[in-house]
Amino acid sequence: MSKLLMFEKPVGMRDTLPHIYETKRKVKEAAESAMRSWGYRFIETPALEYYETVGDASAILDRQLFKLLDQQGNTLVLRPDMTAPIARVAAAKLLKERVPLRLAYSASVYRAQQREGGRAAEFEQIGVEMIGDNTISADAEVIALLVSVMEKAGLENFQLSLGHIRFTDELFQQILGTEERAEQLRRFLYEKNYVGYREHVKELPLSSIDKQRLLQFLDLSGDLGCLDEAAKLVEGSAGVEALNELRAVFGRLQEYGVDQYVTFDLPLVSHMSYYTGLVFEVYADGVGAPIGNGGRYDDLLEKFGHSVGATGFGLRVDFLLEALGQLEDEASVHCVLFSNERRREAIEEAQKRRAAGECVLLQDVSGVKDVDTFTESCKSVTFFVGKSSGGNV
Amino acid sequence: MSKLLMFEKPVGMRDTLPHIYETKRKVKEAAESAMRSWGYRFIETPALEYYETVGDASAILDRQLFKLLDQQGNTLVLRPDMTAPIARVAAAKLLKERVPLRLAYSASVYRAQQREGGRAAEFEQIGVEMIGDNTISADAEVIALLVSVMEKAGLENFQLSLGHIRFTDELFQQILGTEERAEQLRRFLYEKNYVGYREHVKELPLSSIDKQRLLQFLDLSGDLGCLDEAAKLVEGSAGVEALNELRAVFGRLQEYGVDQYVTFDLPLVSHMSYYTGLVFEVYADGVGAPIGNGGRYDDLLEKFGHSVGATGFGLRVDFLLEALGQLEDEASVHCVLFSNERRREAIEEAQKRRAAGECVLLQDVSGVKDVDTFTESCKSVTFFVGKSSGGNV
Repeated sequence: MSKLLMFEKPVGMRDTLPHIYETKRKVKEAAESAMRSWGYRFIETPALEYYETVGDASAILDRQLFKLLDQQGNTLVLRPDMTAPIARVAAAKLLKERVPLRLAYSASVYRAQQREGGRAAEFEQIGVEMIGDNTISADAEVIALLVSVMEKAGLENFQLSLGHIRFTDELFQQILGTEERAEQLRRFLYEKNYVGYREHVKELPLSSIDKQRLLQFLDLSGDLGCLDEAAKLVEGSAGVEALNELRAVFGRLQEYGVDQYVTFDLPLVSHMSYYTGLVFEVYADGVGAPIGNGGRYDDLLEKFGHSVGATGFGLRVDFLLEALGQLEDEASVHCVLFSNERRREAIEEAQKRRAAGECVLLQDVSGVKDVDTFTESCKSVTFFVGKSSGGNV
Repeated sequence: MSKLLMFEKPVGMRDTLPHIYETKRKVKEAAESAMRSWGYRFIETPALEYYETVGDASAILDRQLFKLLDQQGNTLVLRPDMTAPIARVAAAKLLKERVPLRLAYSASVYRAQQREGGRAAEFEQIGVEMIGDNTISADAEVIALLVSVMEKAGLENFQLSLGHIRFTDELFQQILGTEERAEQLRRFLYEKNYVGYREHVKELPLSSIDKQRLLQFLDLSGDLGCLDEAAKLVEGSAGVEALNELRAVFGRLQEYGVDQYVTFDLPLVSHMSYYTGLVFEVYADGVGAPIGNGGRYDDLLEKFGHSVGATGFGLRVDFLLEALGQLEDEASVHCVLFSNERRREAIEEAQKRRAAGECVLLQDVSGVKDVDTFTESCKSVTFFVGKSSGGNV
């Protein structure tokens, strides 16, 4: 093997060096502490799950799964998300207890990538799942918590977009008539390919009024006013009900005092089939992809034998750090350097300072090649070298 | 697929439910904070590494590796330990900075298991690696830190056994003459199969004096006195040097004030080939396997193109929790229950309490089937229901 290959990592895999680690640790602690203070309880699930169970229930494309065979011949997957594993645990064990369940996680998930230089194949998500509560209050709580988490993490410039899957479904059903046609249009929205959407709509065998409705739909974003515009595009109760849910959730977000972060975006489709009601995405200045997203998914638990609704969000820790921008300074460390004769004094000094809460490097000078380089990033140094008494530098 | 299988997890994989998660979090925080206060900097490496590089450099048996193919046709492994990945990062990036390097980790590692009911296939390790310091001071620091970590984690009854690979090597070389024979005996020690060792020694074509030496070696454990006994079994300087290193390390551990945890165990062989000097294992009352181990490994960095020595330890978080025994109580949570008319008051109440540091569940009563079960584990409840004023229960 060449020497270069010796240092290489698989496609999309990254190391986290000390500087970034410390920043991340503090951001995660702040976020996790916010989740705990809202009564969410953290759980962990294994990195590997059966492909047939959790792999199949996950919302991630098959070609993005890391698959392997275990020694019994079963296909395993590295968990591609946390929602499906948590649904498994909830259904198997927790739905007997306090329902609605409020669960939280902070974990790495895995998505195979085709080529280097692109997306991460392993990244951390923190998020919550509220299981067994179908009220608007549950949807609002999850969004208000997401905002609180972002604030506690130190982020100021972010925007949350709200949409509703049932409105989109209803509108497409009314105009297009078939699920197949709806699926085609939904894909353009999912890929945020609005140019493609417009061109596709022009080609459809529809009346010019209906084409106009589909094009107007694209512009339904902004403040509460766009919900009134939206109401003009649909007939019957289902679409209107979805809009009323959006209004009701917004009202609750006003009560939480977080509405200033929220706008509507009715063409928002975060996934091809996963969500069943409210959906949302969070964007931050300077980050090209959503740093978080979520919504209501009332069909997933059914796959694990419990027909209860659920809502939740997931945040990407790497994108959150990118949005925050600034890195923490390295922990300021005091250095105690000693030679053998004065070792005992040096150990005492280090222990005294650590007991007082200081971070202390204790170093035998004979283990260091270059003392200047070694002590360079230390905030201060005490020498216990030779026969003389120690001095601070 | 049957309903049972829907909930199943791969062999050796476990969920961590909220109760244990909280206990683990606090133990890990205490341990990690101790490591940071000694100037160790945390890093993270990917879950997947190339089999040819890190997989090959790891000390773990090939059949215990989880292997998979990436989309480029390379074989990947789920990291079976953290020492080899850290050696990779150190060699690729960090050995240009402050040397000796003090690095720490807290991560899951993966070892494939043959059958259920046995060992964990995924478990967490926390540990440190001190890279580029060949002094006895470095060995002593790592052991003293391990003791400090155990103490900070809240463990009182534990024992650290110290051995030295070069003493064993020298003794076997002098008596047995060939590496092949030494390897056979070393395997008995590695498996802690002392009955097998004794029987094997009896069969060897050696003088009765040499057989006696090999049997006496088995009894070399206990306090400093056993090092004097050990000195009688070897000739020449190499074995004596190893014993002197053990004495010197013990002297430093006395200076750190942690010698009360330390005994000698010269037949200790923690691995078949990995370690090159001092080795140690930590045992706690009531846990059948070592909860931590470590030692000097001066040859590993060579595989990544840097011939520098290193020493370190790794602790198993699951065994540490087993040793600690007691679980934390669940976080005490206050519950605010509301009906729609008084939602605004309820939100205010929850926000006020959270801002004061309390952990608060805010719950719409219409989302709860059984209020008694829901509020059962809450320390207190406030109702904002109907038109009456809220009351504490």
